[in-house]
Amino acid sequence: MLAVDIIRKKRDGAELTSRELEFLIEGYVSNSIPDYQLAAFLMAVYFQGLNDEETAALTLLMAHSGELLDLKEIKGVKVDKHSTGGVGDTTTLIVAPLVASCGVPVAKMSGRGLGHTGGTVDKLESIPGYRVELSPEQFVSQVNKIGVSIVGQTAELAPADKLFYALRDVTGTVDSIPLIASSIMSKKIAAGADCFVLDVKAGRGAFMKSVEEAVQLAQTMVEIGSRAGKETVALVTDMNQPLGRCIGNALEVKEAILTLSGKGPQNLTSLCLELSAEMLVLAKAAENREKALQILRSKLQNKQALSKFGELIKAQGGNPQVLDNLSLLPQARCQEAVLSTQAGYIQEVNPLALGQAAVLLGAGRRTKDTVIDLAVGIELKKQIGEKIQAGEEIARAYANDAALLRQAVPHIKGSFTIAEEQPSSPPLVYRKITANNV
Amino acid sequence: MLAVDIIRKKRDGAELTSRELEFLIEGYVSNSIPDYQLAAFLMAVYFQGLNDEETAALTLLMAHSGELLDLKEIKGVKVDKHSTGGVGDTTTLIVAPLVASCGVPVAKMSGRGLGHTGGTVDKLESIPGYRVELSPEQFVSQVNKIGVSIVGQTAELAPADKLFYALRDVTGTVDSIPLIASSIMSKKIAAGADCFVLDVKAGRGAFMKSVEEAVQLAQTMVEIGSRAGKETVALVTDMNQPLGRCIGNALEVKEAILTLSGKGPQNLTSLCLELSAEMLVLAKAAENREKALQILRSKLQNKQALSKFGELIKAQGGNPQVLDNLSLLPQARCQEAVLSTQAGYIQEVNPLALGQAAVLLGAGRRTKDTVIDLAVGIELKKQIGEKIQAGEEIARAYANDAALLRQAVPHIKGSFTIAEEQPSSPPLVYRKITANNV
Repeated sequence: MLAVDIIRKKRDGAELTSRELEFLIEGYVSNSIPDYQLAAFLMAVYFQGLNDEETAALTLLMAHSGELLDLKEIKGVKVDKHSTGGVGDTTTLIVAPLVASCGVPVAKMSGRGLGHTGGTVDKLESIPGYRVELSPEQFVSQVNKIGVSIVGQTAELAPADKLFYALRDVTGTVDSIPLIASSIMSKKIAAGADCFVLDVKAGRGAFMKSVEEAVQLAQTMVEIGSRAGKETVALVTDMNQPLGRCIGNALEVKEAILTLSGKGPQNLTSLCLELSAEMLVLAKAAENREKALQILRSKLQNKQALSKFGELIKAQGGNPQVLDNLSLLPQARCQEAVLSTQAGYIQEVNPLALGQAAVLLGAGRRTKDTVIDLAVGIELKKQIGEKIQAGEEIARAYANDAALLRQAVPHIKGSFTIAEEQPSSPPLVYRKITANNV
Repeated sequence: MLAVDIIRKKRDGAELTSRELEFLIEGYVSNSIPDYQLAAFLMAVYFQGLNDEETAALTLLMAHSGELLDLKEIKGVKVDKHSTGGVGDTTTLIVAPLVASCGVPVAKMSGRGLGHTGGTVDKLESIPGYRVELSPEQFVSQVNKIGVSIVGQTAELAPADKLFYALRDVTGTVDSIPLIASSIMSKKIAAGADCFVLDVKAGRGAFMKSVEEAVQLAQTMVEIGSRAGKETVALVTDMNQPLGRCIGNALEVKEAILTLSGKGPQNLTSLCLELSAEMLVLAKAAENREKALQILRSKLQNKQALSKFGELIKAQGGNPQVLDNLSLLPQARCQEAVLSTQAGYIQEVNPLALGQAAVLLGAGRRTKDTVIDLAVGIELKKQIGEKIQAGEEIARAYANDAALLRQAVPHIKGSFTIAEEQPSSPPLVYRKITANNV
C-alpha cells in the first residue's frame, strides 16, 4: 500500500477502505507517512469529502490512537455533553450539577477557551481553590461519590486528532465537516461516555455560520456516534447573540450560580433545561423530554441542583461559599457602563464582536500561551427584542486596566444594532437531530 | 503574509497575486515554507486550477529560481523544440541537424528517459564517443561554430521546478494542467531560447490521453510563452501508435540516420518536417510553413541535414562514421522475429504496451537509477492500416538476454490488434496552437 495511491484515490472521489484509512493514520502517528502526504490528503478530503462510513472509521482510528478513558467503574449510564463553542456559553457549569442532581452520573472533561469562544476549565478556575486536574482514579471515584466531576482534558486522549488538528490549522483544511466531526467525536469517544448530547451552535458567533451547515455537522456527528454504538442526540442552537448576559470567566460562573438558583437569563436557562432533558432521556432517567423537563425544573426550584454545584466545587478543592457570596469570585478593578445613544429596540447583538471585545479586555486567549484575566468581561443589559432608551445602560464592561476598558467600550457599543421596530427574538433551538432523523 | 492564507485563498477559488506566488515559491525554495504547506497548496491548485496570469507568474518564478542559461552570444534567433514525451519519439535527433542545416542555430538541452518514454540524451549516448556533457561555454561556442549542439540538461536550471516536481510526485498532484505546463515551460525559459515549438502528444502512449486535454495543455504553454515574451507554437500530435518503427536507443539513432537520408518511416519524417517548418518560420528563416517545407525537403535530398548530423556527432566527440556504417552502433546479441498468427489489417499498435515491453528488454528506466541497455529494443514491421499475412513478421525484438527476449515477445505480439477491415490511419497532427488561436 502506498500513501500516494490513497491520496489519488480520495482526490478522484473514490471511497477509501478502513484498511487504507488505518494505513494513513497509523503511518502518520508513527512517522512513516510524512506531513506533506497527510496535508495533500486532507486537502483532497476538503474537496471530495468523506462518506459516513469513512468518517466513522477515521473517528474510531483517531479515538483509539491513544488510551481510552475507562469509565466502567462508574455506575449507571454515562452521558457526555459537548458544545461546539460560542460566546457566553455557560451551559456546562449549569447542566453538569443539574443532571447529576437527578441521579445521572456526569463525568465531564472540558477544554480551555481560544479566540472569542470561552472554555469551561478557565471558568472553573475563577472559583478560588478549584482544581481542574484530577487523576483518572480521583475523577472516577468522585463521580461515584457525588455524581459529578468536571476536569481539564488530559493530553493523552486521541493523540492522532491532536496531530491532525495542528496540521489542518496551517494547511487551510480546518473547514471540512467530516474532519470537524471526526475531530470532536474522536475525543468524545476516547473520553469514555456511553452516549452524547451535542450542542451544535449556528450563527455569527459560532464556527458554523448557517443553520444548514450546523445541521450537516450535527448529522455527521450523530451518525458517527450511532456507528460507534454510542447513542447520540444533537440540538442545533442559536449563536446569533451571546447566550445569557455574561461574557468572561468569573462573570459566567456568577451567571451559572444565578441560573442554578432559578434567577438566570431566560435563553440560558431554557437551553440548559433542553440539553439536560436530552441527557436524562438518554440515561433512561426520564421517559421523554416533557417528563425530564418536569424533573429538572423541580431540581432548580428545590435548590438541589445548586447544592450539587456546591458539592462539586468542594470536592475539587474550591470554596463553595461562592454560591452565597458572589464577591468571593475575582472582581475587576474598573468598570464602565456602556450607554445607548439611541432609543428603540435591540435588533442585533453581534456575538463575535463581543467575544473579541472580551478578548481585548483580557478574558480570552489570542494564542494558546496567553494568560487570561479571570475577573474581566462584559455584562449585557439588553438582548435582541428588548426596548432601550437613549442614555440607558446597554452593557457593562469590566477590566483591570483602564486603558483596555477605554479601548473595548466602543467595540461593545458597536456590537448592538438598534432600530424602531421590535424584531422577533431568534429561535433558541433550530433542530433536534437523532439517529432516526439524520 | 501567511502561507495558510494563500492556501485558503486558492482553496476558495480566488486568484493569487504574483506577490503571493512569489512569497510561496521563494519561501519554499529557501525552506521558510514547509513541504506540508506547499503540498496542501498544490492539491488546492489541482482542484481550483490557476488562471493564465497565475500560471505565467508561477512559471517565471520557477524559471528564475536558479541561473538562466545565457544564449546571447549565439547569433540569430534561437528556437527550441520540446516534446511532452512518447514512444519511439526520435524527432530531436532529426529536427536539430535538419533545422541547423537551414542556418538556424539549435542550442538544445535534452533529458533522459523514464518509464515507457525514451530520452534524447540516452539515444545520443549510443553513438560511440558522443559526450552529452559540455560546459555552457563549450555549448555556446559549438553552436556558433557548426550551428547545433545537443547536451544533457544541467541540474541548475529551474531548481524550484525540481523541488515542486518531487513533491507533486508523492502527493498525487502531478496531473494538473497548469502545474504540468509551468513545469515544462520554466525549464524551457531557463534554457534561454527566444522562441519555442512544442510537440504535445495525445493518445495511449502519451501523458495526455485525449486530444482535448492535450489541446488544453498546449494552449496553456503557448499562453505562458506569449506572456513571457517568447513566441511559442504548439502542434498537438498523435501518440496512439509509436512514432516511426523503432523503439530503443541505438535503434532510434539508426532510424534518425535513415530519416535524415530520406529513407525514414513516413509518419516520423512528416512530423519532423512539420516541427522543423514551425521552427524555421519562428526564426524568420522562411516566410511560411509551405516555403519552410520546401527548404527542409531540399536539405534532406541534398544530404546537408545528414552531414550536419555528422558534424554534430564529431563536434561532441562521437564517431561520425556511424552515418555510413550503422553496425558501429551497439548491437544486441539476440533477436527474435515476432510473427503474426492472424491475417488482416493492423487496427491498433499500443504504444504504452510496446514502451513497457522495451523497458522489459532493458531499453528504458524503471527508476532514475536503472542502467539502460542501449542496444536493445523493438522494431515494428507494421503500422496501423497496413496489411499482414498469418506467419508474417509483425515486429522484431532485440535483447542481450535470451530470457528477457522470451518474456517480452508475447507482450510485443499482444500490442497489435488485427482485424479484417482496413482502418483509416490516425491523423499525425491534430491541431496547431499559436498565440492567436489559444
